[in-house]
Amino acid sequence: MKLIIDCFGGDKSPSANVEGAIIALKDHSDLSLILTGDEEAIKAELSKHAYDGDRIEIVHAPEVITGEDKPTDAIRLKRESSMIKAVSMLRKEPDIAGLVSTGATGALIAAATLRLGRIRGIRRPAFCPILPTMNGGIVGICDSGANVDVTAEMLLQQAIMGSAYLKAVYGIKDPRVALLNIGVESEKGDDLRKAAYPMLKACGSLNFVGNMESRDLLSGSYDLVVCDGFSGNVLVKTTEGTALELLKKLKKDIYSKTIYKLGALLMKRMFMEEKEFMNYHNYGGSVLLGCEKTVVKGHGSSDAKAVSICIDQAYKMSDGSMNSEIEAALSLTEIG
Amino acid sequence: MKLIIDCFGGDKSPSANVEGAIIALKDHSDLSLILTGDEEAIKAELSKHAYDGDRIEIVHAPEVITGEDKPTDAIRLKRESSMIKAVSMLRKEPDIAGLVSTGATGALIAAATLRLGRIRGIRRPAFCPILPTMNGGIVGICDSGANVDVTAEMLLQQAIMGSAYLKAVYGIKDPRVALLNIGVESEKGDDLRKAAYPMLKACGSLNFVGNMESRDLLSGSYDLVVCDGFSGNVLVKTTEGTALELLKKLKKDIYSKTIYKLGALLMKRMFMEEKEFMNYHNYGGSVLLGCEKTVVKGHGSSDAKAVSICIDQAYKMSDGSMNSEIEAALSLTEIG
Repeated sequence: MKLIIDCFGGDKSPSANVEGAIIALKDHSDLSLILTGDEEAIKAELSKHAYDGDRIEIVHAPEVITGEDKPTDAIRLKRESSMIKAVSMLRKEPDIAGLVSTGATGALIAAATLRLGRIRGIRRPAFCPILPTMNGGIVGICDSGANVDVTAEMLLQQAIMGSAYLKAVYGIKDPRVALLNIGVESEKGDDLRKAAYPMLKACGSLNFVGNMESRDLLSGSYDLVVCDGFSGNVLVKTTEGTALELLKKLKKDIYSKTIYKLGALLMKRMFMEEKEFMNYHNYGGSVLLGCEKTVVKGHGSSDAKAVSICIDQAYKMSDGSMNSEIEAALSLTEIG
Repeated sequence: MKLIIDCFGGDKSPSANVEGAIIALKDHSDLSLILTGDEEAIKAELSKHAYDGDRIEIVHAPEVITGEDKPTDAIRLKRESSMIKAVSMLRKEPDIAGLVSTGATGALIAAATLRLGRIRGIRRPAFCPILPTMNGGIVGICDSGANVDVTAEMLLQQAIMGSAYLKAVYGIKDPRVALLNIGVESEKGDDLRKAAYPMLKACGSLNFVGNMESRDLLSGSYDLVVCDGFSGNVLVKTTEGTALELLKKLKKDIYSKTIYKLGALLMKRMFMEEKEFMNYHNYGGSVLLGCEKTVVKGHGSSDAKAVSICIDQAYKMSDGSMNSEIEAALSLTEIG
């Protein structure tokens, strides 16, 4: 299994990316990696670690795409960047199975969507991040921003792709799929949701459990939430934002009085566990589903461990069985 | 000033509604109220309090609309319900300025939208709840579920209505209006957002500050968020759901160990303040903007204090100046 790692563009690049790559090599003995980015900088990072040199190759790419770059410009103008070079190689070289990047999300989605081949029948690739639920599980959200204008057929395809992903990477046997809506009753929502509901219900390969209100996202009752990219983006960012703001407020309030600080001291272990629970680094990156090859987007602030988890995700997605399952499920629907 | 109070349909109805009405009468000496619902039950509640009998009138309405009733059926079939009777009287009687209900949201929005006259030029009424921000302020979200399919013109109208509302009820002088989007850059989003952005920017009566990502909702940087009813619904329910789930988890974790319980004991006052901070009862109900008359929807679980705050909101919205301001601002736009 060969994967390509974009080593620049993250907050802790290239050190986190290089170290994450070395951790992943230890975890998977049949894995080899190509690292893209400034060769000297990558070599300098590599020299800090012990690793099997035969399993790592460096491809020099002097430019870096940042969040400031407009995605379409980035693809066109920064061909020598670590990200675009990685996408181009992924496209051209049959033996590279997938890509992991911690760089700019918009540019990565645009580059992968425009450059990579799609699974047969897939209308548009979709972006699927993961959030932790309150009972210790996870929930996937598909799509969360790749496609702001979608059709009911696309929502059905997202459900099929997301289900296959949760099976392949998280070992969830029969993922419970919900449609994000403004109420749980089957007739709720706009025309899009009203059209998608019966299609999801009729799809034999899905475990569709009905509509979900966004307040129940973290309840643990659902494994996959299907939505248009606009409301999916709102769903994910609101959850992250609310959690972050509440923790910030809690911290500020604790520091406002000595007795609270004392109390918090007794609860130190608990607060550390809460923080770890809410640390999205532990749950892997967001994946772009629907391309012929694997694309995993790690969070911009990923550390080495987070990068290694992303590489592990890519590894599990890339043996071909996930995409075969998606293709088979699609062929059974009218829109396959 | 005369308002009508739907005394049934809430979790604590009719006692909370009747007691809330009596509190409001004390707060506003020029206020008189009509209470709709089962006459005997309302009389029994009234008998528990001292109040000025000249300022309260009961209108008997034996039926109750519940969350189980389909909104359109509720309007058609439950004309003798406390809610539909209140809406009908509001429509017919010129001296009644507004309505407060803690009953089913869908039925109330449908009844008010279908039965009440609109402010001249308004395409569709919009629903606007309020959330507390982390710096002690509030933020309004318009629309949050009245209209799932909207146009750019409707988003502009929502911005105008929401701004006037925040001025009239919360005394915010020049409300900072943001457009909910998937990124802050002006060119972000789907066709709807791309069309709405320049219209909002060009509107002289608005303090439009640009796009907002949902993660910044609670930051205190915005007074009003403008969105379609679908994503607005997702925004509000995700915020409420995430906060609730996190508090639930915190509580569970505290009870898991004696030392945590001890720590929490020292922080008891702080946790009570956090709980009060997040208690939506303190921030008033959601209002339906765009009707000729005032409609305030209190939360289903409203207690007497929460009902009195809703009546206070209705009082402040109903002297005519808010709707005049909306009409004037509309007339200055091309779509007025």
